[in-house]
Amino acid sequence: MKKDQVKDCKDVILSMELIAENLNEVIKVLDREAIISMLQEILEGERVFVMGAGRSGLVAKAFAMRLMHLGFTVYVVGETTTPAVRQQDVVIAISGSGETRSIADLGKIVKDIGSTLITVTSKKESTLGRISDIAMILPSKTKNDHDAGGYLEKNMRGDYKNLPPLGTAFEITSLVFLDSIIAQLITLTGASEAELKSRHTNIE
Amino acid sequence: MKKDQVKDCKDVILSMELIAENLNEVIKVLDREAIISMLQEILEGERVFVMGAGRSGLVAKAFAMRLMHLGFTVYVVGETTTPAVRQQDVVIAISGSGETRSIADLGKIVKDIGSTLITVTSKKESTLGRISDIAMILPSKTKNDHDAGGYLEKNMRGDYKNLPPLGTAFEITSLVFLDSIIAQLITLTGASEAELKSRHTNIE
Amino acid sequence: MKKDQVKDCKDVILSMELIAENLNEVIKVLDREAIISMLQEILEGERVFVMGAGRSGLVAKAFAMRLMHLGFTVYVVGETTTPAVRQQDVVIAISGSGETRSIADLGKIVKDIGSTLITVTSKKESTLGRISDIAMILPSKTKNDHDAGGYLEKNMRGDYKNLPPLGTAFEITSLVFLDSIIAQLITLTGASEAELKSRHTNIE
Amino acid sequence: MKKDQVKDCKDVILSMELIAENLNEVIKVLDREAIISMLQEILEGERVFVMGAGRSGLVAKAFAMRLMHLGFTVYVVGETTTPAVRQQDVVIAISGSGETRSIADLGKIVKDIGSTLITVTSKKESTLGRISDIAMILPSKTKNDHDAGGYLEKNMRGDYKNLPPLGTAFEITSLVFLDSIIAQLITLTGASEAELKSRHTNIE
Repeated sequence: MKKDQVKDCKDVILSMELIAENLNEVIKVLDREAIISMLQEILEGERVFVMGAGRSGLVAKAFAMRLMHLGFTVYVVGETTTPAVRQQDVVIAISGSGETRSIADLGKIVKDIGSTLITVTSKKESTLGRISDIAMILPSKTKNDHDAGGYLEKNMRGDYKNLPPLGTAFEITSLVFLDSIIAQLITLTGASEAELKSRHTNIE
Repeated sequence: MKKDQVKDCKDVILSMELIAENLNEVIKVLDREAIISMLQEILEGERVFVMGAGRSGLVAKAFAMRLMHLGFTVYVVGETTTPAVRQQDVVIAISGSGETRSIADLGKIVKDIGSTLITVTSKKESTLGRISDIAMILPSKTKNDHDAGGYLEKNMRGDYKNLPPLGTAFEITSLVFLDSIIAQLITLTGASEAELKSRHTNIE
Repeated sequence: MKKDQVKDCKDVILSMELIAENLNEVIKVLDREAIISMLQEILEGERVFVMGAGRSGLVAKAFAMRLMHLGFTVYVVGETTTPAVRQQDVVIAISGSGETRSIADLGKIVKDIGSTLITVTSKKESTLGRISDIAMILPSKTKNDHDAGGYLEKNMRGDYKNLPPLGTAFEITSLVFLDSIIAQLITLTGASEAELKSRHTNIE
Repeated sequence: MKKDQVKDCKDVILSMELIAENLNEVIKVLDREAIISMLQEILEGERVFVMGAGRSGLVAKAFAMRLMHLGFTVYVVGETTTPAVRQQDVVIAISGSGETRSIADLGKIVKDIGSTLITVTSKKESTLGRISDIAMILPSKTKNDHDAGGYLEKNMRGDYKNLPPLGTAFEITSLVFLDSIIAQLITLTGASEAELKSRHTNIE
């Protein structure tokens, strides 16, 4: 590309404005009861496991880091020393479409083990949405089926058709939502320091 | 924690609203010239390298995935097969404080090699801000020095004091900003398909 | 465990001796023609992709690092910026049982794309062994079916029954074998520096 | 490279034989007392942390996976949810030269925290060798200083001079050694099932 070909940055600004606007619309329609249940389950679970594929997997890791900072025993599915899931654990899946194959397959195993499964998704009527104890819906204005099927398979085939704009809204919204879950967990765990002190030992 | 201890989800909603509000304020004060230069450098660079520590590293990976989808040759510093940086490459560092030790050290090496260094940060007056060819400032209302020093060192010491609310705003803003850079790159590379066709081969 | 409970280290020494002995036995029965074909395919492929689950995945990464050092364009399946596989590429799978589900599924896609598939395995008569262009057999004295099925699924269920001694021999043998492939590639690429010079640019 | 350019695979076979031979020589000179102390410390530590850069980091991960299978609480330094190190923990560093900068820096912090530091290295007289509670020496016939300095820095500069043959012997020997540590830990933890039962819960 030649020098000085970029004349302006209008698309960057417009895209940021649309994302902020979308965020404000999502806030209005969030299911408050589902959020309360999600907070409760995270606090009651013995350990927390997070999982997601591709960019949703990065959002899952960003959430897991914060939970670890807060003193929770938390694992990312697929990392080196992640132990087996047990019945008392809570597993949180991040999947925009609710159909990401590898994550949906693992979700079924989680339900088979008897653990609590929470899915953060934009589609209630999806494989993960239907089998989850809590389907935390972050609605997305656009059709969001790009991550259905195996993520690695689609990656291997180079199947990125229309990927950029579609998934982005969900990924950002889920990061903002999960960081806000952290904000309330700070208040909640601070308020019951005695009960959660073993989890807090790393924050000193 | 006992059953039914969570009474509401006010903090979750409030936190989401604050993040959306902060995002809108950041949009107003962005340096348009810096954005245009950043787009130009990404298009002109032979290859793109991204780097960041902790959650900023996850944002860097999320950006790298999208660049790869667009057909750019892109690498994450620290991954298994990331090759050596060369003079014609562009290196993009993500660091809220601009002082993250490992990233600042690598930034100096990048300048030593003679490559273009772009830092996305909230602090212009910082180690990385000062040595970068482009310091892309995403201002943050709060003091944001939590990731100065070695990330792994702070992690090892359990030094998470005040971590949650401070870094969060920067990390979300940088993800939104970089996804919006992608939005304009879609337009730009689409408009010059002939020139960039070798990069595009995976998007068919 | 109480102080001074460990009286000796006989098992450590015995285990190391057994591994060295097993290695010497494997060397004797290696298919020389398959090795030559494998070297040829790696040199002819446009790019090299490696894949494996669990500890076999770590062996794949260790091999990929060395190929990158040698100047090859090489990617680890599943990492952030790994692009789509194309027909002219070579894909190398590492799977002791040849049945690791996720890797076998990806192997089928590789054949579907039309790329060259090489599997390093201990079982010729296995899903991956049968569909591969080259099945590089590293025989293992023990029944080695522990990594059949989905690795993440078995990990999630805590299904580590008899894991330690069984897979170990294969993983070590495959690391030794692949590092020895590197040894000959150093000679081979050095001998044809002119032809491979673009790949070599990072080794200066 | 042209078709049929590879005439034989003598270097592959020779390299495998040399590695097996080197392994047998290392076994003869291992410090038995150091091995016994290492086993004891791993059993007594509250949690185990492993660390290493580049290929030594992959060996560290392979060891960590097996410890997790055995029921130990184990973490890889640098992974998403690795918590802070505490005094009662054991930290195991893998570094051929004993000088890998990032690992040596973290080793000093480990000693500062007061945890037990074990280094698996080929050089007793090295930064890590000197500060460790146990320096587990795996001697290497060749000069092995290639991983001194910052791994990511050398990677960024493309400084792979003489990398392949030198580090390989140490990496393979350390993998074989650590897998043999696992073999004895299986016996040891099986022998004291009652004491270690909480660690064993995942192996059922």
